[in-house]
Amino acid sequence: MGVLFEHELKVGVCLSLMKTVLTGVKPTGRIHIGNYLGAMRPAIAMCNQENVQGLLFIADYHSLTTVHNAETLNHMVYDLAATWLALGLDPQQTFIYRQSDVPETFELQWILSCMSAKGLMNRAHAYKAIVQENEKKAKSDLDDGVNMGLYNYPILMAADILLFSADEVPVGEDQVQHVEIARDLAEKFNRIFAEEVIRLPKVVVQKESKIVPGLDGRKMSKSYDNTIPVFMEPKKMRQLVMKIKTDSSGPEDPKDPNSSILFDLYKEFATPEQVEEMAHRYHKGIGWGYVKQDLFEAMESTLSGPREHYKELMNNKDELDQILKEGSSRARERAAELMSRVRTAIGITRRGK
Amino acid sequence: MGVLFEHELKVGVCLSLMKTVLTGVKPTGRIHIGNYLGAMRPAIAMCNQENVQGLLFIADYHSLTTVHNAETLNHMVYDLAATWLALGLDPQQTFIYRQSDVPETFELQWILSCMSAKGLMNRAHAYKAIVQENEKKAKSDLDDGVNMGLYNYPILMAADILLFSADEVPVGEDQVQHVEIARDLAEKFNRIFAEEVIRLPKVVVQKESKIVPGLDGRKMSKSYDNTIPVFMEPKKMRQLVMKIKTDSSGPEDPKDPNSSILFDLYKEFATPEQVEEMAHRYHKGIGWGYVKQDLFEAMESTLSGPREHYKELMNNKDELDQILKEGSSRARERAAELMSRVRTAIGITRRGK
Repeated sequence: MGVLFEHELKVGVCLSLMKTVLTGVKPTGRIHIGNYLGAMRPAIAMCNQENVQGLLFIADYHSLTTVHNAETLNHMVYDLAATWLALGLDPQQTFIYRQSDVPETFELQWILSCMSAKGLMNRAHAYKAIVQENEKKAKSDLDDGVNMGLYNYPILMAADILLFSADEVPVGEDQVQHVEIARDLAEKFNRIFAEEVIRLPKVVVQKESKIVPGLDGRKMSKSYDNTIPVFMEPKKMRQLVMKIKTDSSGPEDPKDPNSSILFDLYKEFATPEQVEEMAHRYHKGIGWGYVKQDLFEAMESTLSGPREHYKELMNNKDELDQILKEGSSRARERAAELMSRVRTAIGITRRGK
Repeated sequence: MGVLFEHELKVGVCLSLMKTVLTGVKPTGRIHIGNYLGAMRPAIAMCNQENVQGLLFIADYHSLTTVHNAETLNHMVYDLAATWLALGLDPQQTFIYRQSDVPETFELQWILSCMSAKGLMNRAHAYKAIVQENEKKAKSDLDDGVNMGLYNYPILMAADILLFSADEVPVGEDQVQHVEIARDLAEKFNRIFAEEVIRLPKVVVQKESKIVPGLDGRKMSKSYDNTIPVFMEPKKMRQLVMKIKTDSSGPEDPKDPNSSILFDLYKEFATPEQVEEMAHRYHKGIGWGYVKQDLFEAMESTLSGPREHYKELMNNKDELDQILKEGSSRARERAAELMSRVRTAIGITRRGK
């Protein structure tokens, strides 16, 4: 699995025979086909496996480092939850919850802060990138534009990860450092207080399994402005599909399916028979307009059901809240086990709830 | 009121006609006579006033920045709570609770982190002092020895203060910056999200009202190793009192009560009649041994009752836990009001508990 949105983190846990997979997703805006095919679809498939206990949390408090508008943040969270559910995440099997509904996260973050040398945060990639940018601009304050949410980000992420006693953390390369920091903090904690209070997650680096092309052929990404949102009205989606870049070959010319953006996308939505048939038509020669129409129809047949489900959920936020609340209750049972061990280890007696 | 222990913070709040006084105390070890006379006795007197609602919290998670031993931290918290209660804090009138039992604190801390420029923390006194020390020692890493708990300390303190919508914060001069940082963060939050969500506390600088002399005549302080613990066995306390520094004047020589450490201490424990009588004896001439014996007896008559109460509480930790739990329940009702406004303002929907 590749990287999901900008700040994805994923945690795979093996508990005896049951594997626990934890995925954190930061609300950042509308989900596109690239997110869906590259990360969500495989994550959902993994969560729906019989021997997997999935935990999926919406990292709303991570978004607060940059999103300072209540309506936007609130909408983003519902939108993201509804999207995952509509695309097939089963809330009976997977615990789906808001990060903000697990207050243990923030308590653990404080505890981990007390274990964290400041130097460790100085070396975090996201922070260093801003400092370097400020150096380039010859700013007198190298911390210009850095808020403490961003600076503390790796510690909050460590809390997110360690709270559920993950054994393995499969992540994209850009997220490896976050897991390493989580490991460092867990190790430090265990060394100071007691062995094996916090389980050290193993980093498993995952190569991006799939690069989904965008409208212009480059990787589909918000920063390239070449995305197709996963849920949009058929008419608009068809318009976007019609804009996908093609070469100037004529309708009669034989075409190579292996060097065609349209074919790459078609493979993701069509049945194996349809794909075989399309390859045949490529070799024979086919007008791009027909490919686009077929691609649109295949997408529509995959996404129209989820789109309706998404709309229903967005029109019924009470139900969404109920699902997220149940998810957090179940997730917190796990968090409570870890926190009980941690509090005992440091000498904090907890009587309240 | 003066500064209580090393990291005291006090928050006085006027809510309509009722004044709320919040005092945070960091467990740092055995309480001595200087702590009692200089800070605890006036704080207890203030909390016991009819028009005052007191809140007193044991800042156990602040101690975690330096105390990395479960037994020590656990004992310190019980010790501090039992000391306050034994010395007259009425748990029916004042909410006494553990900081760690108010998880809203840590959530608010994260929220305030996202509002806090890193530069603000760079200017915090405690952090700057360490950096300067490292500069002096010509260390290559100026952050050597700084942990993120210490660096984030002012934000946690801001959360402690702002959570209860304080109007006024009376503090010693060394604590002024912490309240100013709390104000800055509250102001920033309100500017970004909505006016008057978080109440800005007013800083009220309090001069130290009383300097209690230690065994050697300097201010009684752990760093001078000249303290008399508030609760110790009579025999040991008498031994310490006998060690208090005196001049070399003989028993018959007339003495000035206004330049006598023993007299300063005697005034704090004896009745006005006893004090007047003692002044008279000073002027007539009195042997220091007699003064010390009388001082010891006056201390003993004030402290023996509380000492027994303290022992009972320390032998009945369940009762202490019960008192602290009730205190936190009542304190959390106040915290919940603020957090509800804050979450609405930022767009976090909270369904769990």
